[in-house]
Amino acid sequence: MGSHIDTVRTGGRFDGALGVLAGLEIVQTLDDAGVVTPRPLAVAFFTNEEGARFQPDMFGSLVFTGALPLEKALATVGVDGAVAGEELARIGYAGEAPVGRPNVHAYVELHVEQGPTLEAEGCTIGAVEGVQGISWTELTLNGQSNHAGTTPMRMRRDAGYVAAEIASYVRRLAQDIGGNQVATVGALTLTPNLVNVVAEKALMTVDLRNTDNERLMEAERRLADFVAKTAKAEGVTVETRSLARFDPVAFSAPLVHRVESIAREFELSVKRLPSGAGHDAQMLAAVCPACMIFVPSAGGVSHDIEEYTAPEHCAAGADVLLRLVTELAA
Amino acid sequence: MGSHIDTVRTGGRFDGALGVLAGLEIVQTLDDAGVVTPRPLAVAFFTNEEGARFQPDMFGSLVFTGALPLEKALATVGVDGAVAGEELARIGYAGEAPVGRPNVHAYVELHVEQGPTLEAEGCTIGAVEGVQGISWTELTLNGQSNHAGTTPMRMRRDAGYVAAEIASYVRRLAQDIGGNQVATVGALTLTPNLVNVVAEKALMTVDLRNTDNERLMEAERRLADFVAKTAKAEGVTVETRSLARFDPVAFSAPLVHRVESIAREFELSVKRLPSGAGHDAQMLAAVCPACMIFVPSAGGVSHDIEEYTAPEHCAAGADVLLRLVTELAA
Repeated sequence: MGSHIDTVRTGGRFDGALGVLAGLEIVQTLDDAGVVTPRPLAVAFFTNEEGARFQPDMFGSLVFTGALPLEKALATVGVDGAVAGEELARIGYAGEAPVGRPNVHAYVELHVEQGPTLEAEGCTIGAVEGVQGISWTELTLNGQSNHAGTTPMRMRRDAGYVAAEIASYVRRLAQDIGGNQVATVGALTLTPNLVNVVAEKALMTVDLRNTDNERLMEAERRLADFVAKTAKAEGVTVETRSLARFDPVAFSAPLVHRVESIAREFELSVKRLPSGAGHDAQMLAAVCPACMIFVPSAGGVSHDIEEYTAPEHCAAGADVLLRLVTELAA
Repeated sequence: MGSHIDTVRTGGRFDGALGVLAGLEIVQTLDDAGVVTPRPLAVAFFTNEEGARFQPDMFGSLVFTGALPLEKALATVGVDGAVAGEELARIGYAGEAPVGRPNVHAYVELHVEQGPTLEAEGCTIGAVEGVQGISWTELTLNGQSNHAGTTPMRMRRDAGYVAAEIASYVRRLAQDIGGNQVATVGALTLTPNLVNVVAEKALMTVDLRNTDNERLMEAERRLADFVAKTAKAEGVTVETRSLARFDPVAFSAPLVHRVESIAREFELSVKRLPSGAGHDAQMLAAVCPACMIFVPSAGGVSHDIEEYTAPEHCAAGADVLLRLVTELAA
């Protein structure tokens, strides 16, 4: 049945768009074949899955499932000072459909893995068992700007130095916690950011993820201890703000099993694995059976210009998705 | 003779402007008193002493003394992409006087200390013996952007992590070299600078200073070794660019001695000390006897909104400057 699924056969850089393209092609394929499913199919995509500009990420699906009030999401102020609701109106994406409707019978999301596991093990299909818990923290470190030549080291209150110590520690923290713990300082901005001035302020983020919520909380505790101790030793004050905090999510066991079995029926190699990235499916899992289908990311690379998924992998994922959603809609 | 030196008596934030204000007041004071000195006095101030926008710093005095060709300084591209010569023309500061004229018999510069030593020791006047050597390096670290949730720690080529390790090391380096070594990472910019993306690029500066050139070179060597080793281990490449490199400078011994003795004649407490900051006087020292007079910075703070020098200290420094320049002009 996958023969009509042409767009996704080009391969390329997709990130979350692969699922949307495959969904549109599935609807077109069923229409072309004159298939009417007992339950209606809908192709969903949600505002602000990524969260780079407005935090928390995935707030569209959070609103849909009732976990975040619509008004709060629309009032979110972005990193550039823009207001989410105003921006949605400006670009024409502020729709009028009621929140949380229609009721969802089941939710399936196709996505590129964004990690190296499928490629490394030579698998085409990933049956995603769940999603890592995510903890995003913003730290604002306030020290004192001073002259880089005349200020003795012992008298410094260097916010940039404290930020560097924290970013170094975050790597050690991931190693110490072990398992699938990942930890990243992706954003760090110094003020005034000049070669010869000790930084008075550092604004930084810490991204911690683990499939085990106990270990994730342990990582959060250790980070908080290190930040407090290191800042205090330098005479730097800290403001801490949670940008996002999601517990790990387990997908519907029957659906995960069905992804595996469909892949085998199609003679596609398949492997169970967790998702390191957050996805809207984890929010939908709170209101209906949900699961995800992964296809390989070349080199495990994503969020980079070099992201690539091969055409045959895109099509294989779309084929599995088509079979699963037509079963669920029966 | 200091009774006419009124402007500087207000105290406040001056940085290098204290010397200019005092110079203007001295000329006014001598004019008002009808004093004509055998050698003419000139109040000098030089373009781009600070170097925050255009590097190297102090390029005005470098050009004046012949150490940097005028054309090269004017062609300097700033951190914002502006060209120094065009900006001077735009703001009306591109003068027509020939470079290096008039010949200078002697050069004396009054400045706030920008460090804590005079205040800590209860001294009003600093007789500056020389200026620390300065080494500014810009490092561009190139890794690979990737997803912060899905990329295992061992597969990362995180430019931000390498930058943090370097910034942490720079503090240890200052402690290991000891003496008056200072070391600062004041500027650090990540790309793309997002919470959930491993940084593909980090642009950072390292500011190293020491009065002992051998130790400064040792610090430069150790830094280069650490950068190469740490970047290689992470699979990150490094581009290194020298933004400024000045050897330590010793001021004219007779002039330093005369600053001391004048201060004592005025019953002002005085102390010999080095300058941690770069100053135009260090460039002039290559072409004539030069020295500097320091007055206390409250709390040792400078390059900050809290910089402050008390009115009585400003006036005391201006009095010593007035006496010394009238002697030198005799």
